[in-house]
Amino acid sequence: MDISETPQKMASVISKEELLLHWQGHRGLTRRVIEAFPEKEFFNHSIGGMRTFAALVEEMLAIAVPGLRQIVDGSTETFQEQQDENNSKAKVLARWDAATPEIDSLWAQIPTERFSETILTFGQYEGTVLSSVLYFIDNEIHHRGQGYVYLRSLGIEPPYFWQR
Amino acid sequence: MDISETPQKMASVISKEELLLHWQGHRGLTRRVIEAFPEKEFFNHSIGGMRTFAALVEEMLAIAVPGLRQIVDGSTETFQEQQDENNSKAKVLARWDAATPEIDSLWAQIPTERFSETILTFGQYEGTVLSSVLYFIDNEIHHRGQGYVYLRSLGIEPPYFWQR
Repeated sequence: MDISETPQKMASVISKEELLLHWQGHRGLTRRVIEAFPEKEFFNHSIGGMRTFAALVEEMLAIAVPGLRQIVDGSTETFQEQQDENNSKAKVLARWDAATPEIDSLWAQIPTERFSETILTFGQYEGTVLSSVLYFIDNEIHHRGQGYVYLRSLGIEPPYFWQR
Repeated sequence: MDISETPQKMASVISKEELLLHWQGHRGLTRRVIEAFPEKEFFNHSIGGMRTFAALVEEMLAIAVPGLRQIVDGSTETFQEQQDENNSKAKVLARWDAATPEIDSLWAQIPTERFSETILTFGQYEGTVLSSVLYFIDNEIHHRGQGYVYLRSLGIEPPYFWQR
């Protein structure tokens, strides 16, 4: 590391705006993976005793907006996935799309300097705002990768990974 | 966005050093996933016609150091995965561990201001240094998530995702 670098200069590889675009790009790909599933298999196909892709998507939805809301207003919410006995891919996609502008709006309420602040999300996960948000994104990539295997095992070609 | 923010202040959610730690943390988890596979299944288990986890790990190895090397010195390398007819998990883990300090060393040679520079890796992938590196990391998370499904389908419990 060049010791002549100032803290500001060190801290300059991703802006807050770039990180949001990165996440929303990933969310667009996850949406295409949801769309690629047949209605029935979205809710009941799994491998090795794992959760269905519908359950993994519920986890993503239960993390994104509620997680950001806690970061923005310092509230504590318990981790809660929606239960809907008459669920459908269309309903999940509608909730996915409703979360998109909510994420944008909450993101705009987090000042850049807060990304290094230590916080607790869902009453139990301690980290900085940055490490929490990176965890939200990485968790989505991780579980979406599992959805790719589910699709392949059903003989369905998933969307290109690089497509955002 | 607060218009009073300066460009430096806008660009301050992840430092170069934090991004490296983030990647190396992920690489540590990927190493544990490699270790969790039985020797034979690492090289021949797959689902739905996908690549084996060994092949996915070869891709990660063919991307990380060669990708960074091209970023550092502006060279062009073709994308090339190692072929070894007498390969073993131990050999792959040794190459994984050898890549770790190489990544650190190459990373140190990328000045912070270059992360916004447009580059071409492997003669064909255009992006900024930042988007290229994020792609390397995301690709690893994506394929490692697939390794989790392979492990579960073999009745093996994978390492905790949050363990870095």
